[in-house]
Amino acid sequence: MESLDQFELTKDFLERFDEAIETQNSQFITESLEGVNPADVTSLLHEFSSEKSKYVLDLLPVDKSAEVINDLDTDVRVKFLQHFAPGEISKFVNELDSDDGADIVNELPIKMREEIIEGIENEEKAANVLELLRYDEDCAGGLMAKELIKANVNWSIGKTIEEIRRQAENVQKVYAVYVVDDFDRLVGRVSLKKIVMAEDHMKVSSIYDSDVISVETFQGEEEVASIMRKYDLEALPVINRQGRLVGRITIDDIVDVITELAEQDRQLMAGISEDVEEDDSVWMLTRARLPWLVVGMLGGLLGALFMEAFEHNITLTLTFFIPLIMATGGNVGIQSSSLVVQSLANKSAFSKTTYTRLWKVFWVAILNGLLLAAMVFLGVQFLMGSGLRLALIVALALMSVVLLSSFMGTATPLLLDKFGINPALASGPFITTANDLLGLAVYFGVAHLLFSM
Amino acid sequence: MESLDQFELTKDFLERFDEAIETQNSQFITESLEGVNPADVTSLLHEFSSEKSKYVLDLLPVDKSAEVINDLDTDVRVKFLQHFAPGEISKFVNELDSDDGADIVNELPIKMREEIIEGIENEEKAANVLELLRYDEDCAGGLMAKELIKANVNWSIGKTIEEIRRQAENVQKVYAVYVVDDFDRLVGRVSLKKIVMAEDHMKVSSIYDSDVISVETFQGEEEVASIMRKYDLEALPVINRQGRLVGRITIDDIVDVITELAEQDRQLMAGISEDVEEDDSVWMLTRARLPWLVVGMLGGLLGALFMEAFEHNITLTLTFFIPLIMATGGNVGIQSSSLVVQSLANKSAFSKTTYTRLWKVFWVAILNGLLLAAMVFLGVQFLMGSGLRLALIVALALMSVVLLSSFMGTATPLLLDKFGINPALASGPFITTANDLLGLAVYFGVAHLLFSM
Repeated sequence: MESLDQFELTKDFLERFDEAIETQNSQFITESLEGVNPADVTSLLHEFSSEKSKYVLDLLPVDKSAEVINDLDTDVRVKFLQHFAPGEISKFVNELDSDDGADIVNELPIKMREEIIEGIENEEKAANVLELLRYDEDCAGGLMAKELIKANVNWSIGKTIEEIRRQAENVQKVYAVYVVDDFDRLVGRVSLKKIVMAEDHMKVSSIYDSDVISVETFQGEEEVASIMRKYDLEALPVINRQGRLVGRITIDDIVDVITELAEQDRQLMAGISEDVEEDDSVWMLTRARLPWLVVGMLGGLLGALFMEAFEHNITLTLTFFIPLIMATGGNVGIQSSSLVVQSLANKSAFSKTTYTRLWKVFWVAILNGLLLAAMVFLGVQFLMGSGLRLALIVALALMSVVLLSSFMGTATPLLLDKFGINPALASGPFITTANDLLGLAVYFGVAHLLFSM
Repeated sequence: MESLDQFELTKDFLERFDEAIETQNSQFITESLEGVNPADVTSLLHEFSSEKSKYVLDLLPVDKSAEVINDLDTDVRVKFLQHFAPGEISKFVNELDSDDGADIVNELPIKMREEIIEGIENEEKAANVLELLRYDEDCAGGLMAKELIKANVNWSIGKTIEEIRRQAENVQKVYAVYVVDDFDRLVGRVSLKKIVMAEDHMKVSSIYDSDVISVETFQGEEEVASIMRKYDLEALPVINRQGRLVGRITIDDIVDVITELAEQDRQLMAGISEDVEEDDSVWMLTRARLPWLVVGMLGGLLGALFMEAFEHNITLTLTFFIPLIMATGGNVGIQSSSLVVQSLANKSAFSKTTYTRLWKVFWVAILNGLLLAAMVFLGVQFLMGSGLRLALIVALALMSVVLLSSFMGTATPLLLDKFGINPALASGPFITTANDLLGLAVYFGVAHLLFSM
């Protein structure tokens, strides 16, 4: 029963393990890792240096170390594999599904790739990996594995089961058998459940399901993810332009795609330009953050220049409300754009026209704007004891900024999406900076108008 | 072969379909929906009013309409089901997996629930749904379905296959057979692949895998999602405190959980307080957005009060740089907090201590701060022709704000996480507003110090 527990990394264990590596106590290492899930070994190795990890990995059976390497974060893996000779990497790739193998080969320097593929023992695997390298990473072809089980529509169940026995060694997870015609074109699927329940002499053609959902190799990862999510699929066959079955995408890869896309959106919203993580180097983190900070800074300098130009129309008291105007504009803008980003991501709400969207946003903005303006009007007059005119200016400017930021926050992601740019960018610093400047202009514009009345 | 194509909603088809509903042309409707995936029917019905949708749904076979209802967005479904009598809803629940059925019953008014459960034809289903209603929605018990296939460890494969045949009607997707002992305690699993490949006379005990990963009913949905993601599982058995097998969580539900959690984070970051979508009513959207706007507004008023208090220490020229200081502080804060949020979400980076985190953040801040301060110093002096002293004040204040915002942006999500609050809140308006005020204070503090020198 203890195998039901998940493997736990205690501080105590980590210290003992570290000591075992230092003293080359291979017995302790192999014993404590026996029966441990490769994913847990990966977590463990993330705690140690590349050299120490290599020592541990060399003690494991090759199929297990291959899984561990497959589980590593990409950037960790790239550094780690520098300690291995091409021949060693070939052995790992030989153990993995073709898609995972191709991902690993793809990350390595071009001159190493050929050598690795040549070193793969299983010739079919080598050919499969080579084929997968041709596809773009972000499309169905780049996500699929070549490993799958297929049956000819004219076969009997008995023959199909034989085929499963023959192929099963190469295919880790079998959800269904794909049914093809004599030209290898996908015509349907049979679930394993149906095969277990059928009699051996029955024909595939009498039990297969012709309503099979598939994608073509060139379809993008976002589309693949949304199809698998919509139809609750755990595996999705991939066909080429001729309708021939060329591969299969499994849900575990799509779960990773969904998580990565959400992370990308978050980084865009936060203004981080590269795919960095907290444990990257100080220099990488600085480089990923600086460009957006410079954009914000240039915007701030522009704002200063703008205020300097209108110096004679601005009183000091007026500037007290700059933080209020800017913060509200920023908040309204981000709220608006993230609602649009969210509904663009959920393709279910696909039918809304730009016109109805803007019209609704307009009413929400009017309501929010009126309520905020009323509160600010009272606040400025009573809390700060300022005159009626100042309170009126601030309230009116606030109302205008809410309207303008709502419009900008809604229109920008829609526009970005139309041009094929990730709409999450609209919540990032570039647009926020533009909004800040617009807010300032509106504020001083309103002030100028009301002062000269 | 045409069944391979996905169902497409063209404007033309929508108009013809609408006309068919108006003229009660039931033949056109049933014919055009025949063989169409329920998920596609759901997309179609999202285009029509509840009354029209009900007319369409009543024409479909009950197992298909049940799937369609299961696929609807929660808020749409709640409104839609108001048009149905409890007895009708019982029929739908009867067709669905127990977890989906329980979700639907859970959304309805309490007084309806009993009547619906009593009306479920299949008594076992009714008991299962009733049992699932006891669990909190956000834990493993609330995510699991009662439908699964289990075999006693002492059975033969032949008997297991018989059991699969008997139970398979109730279980839509079979990935594996769970192996239990005489006390119904989970001891392992056998994949369907292994069963297909085994001989009938073999014992389950000789081929099952005792390394089965499971969760307990009370474990949270985030933990369940991270376990299924880490170990690439398509189904996860759920046990109770006694170790008895009580249910099974499938990956399609977890994909939804992952997507929802990402959406929640985005809404927190954007300052939207309820779970709203773009197609909710104007009033709901206003209500979800107003609280955070009021927070920002109050912060802005506080800022104004603060500046008023220091009125005599502030020159107009100094205020030109308020936008610069505020924008930079905001950008740095959001960058810092989202990096922390991201690494908290990826439990792989769990070992970092707060101390090492802050130390690294400090260095990134120093680097970014120095570079920005240098650029701003030059910008203020040459672009705006201001004096050396002003340039020095702005540069120094900017540097301090970058340091302070980095610290706040890193510490806040860590602190929130420690208290069990979603750390994504740290990127939202509340913290941003606090940062804005701190930035103002630092700016005028630095100015005061340098002026009085």
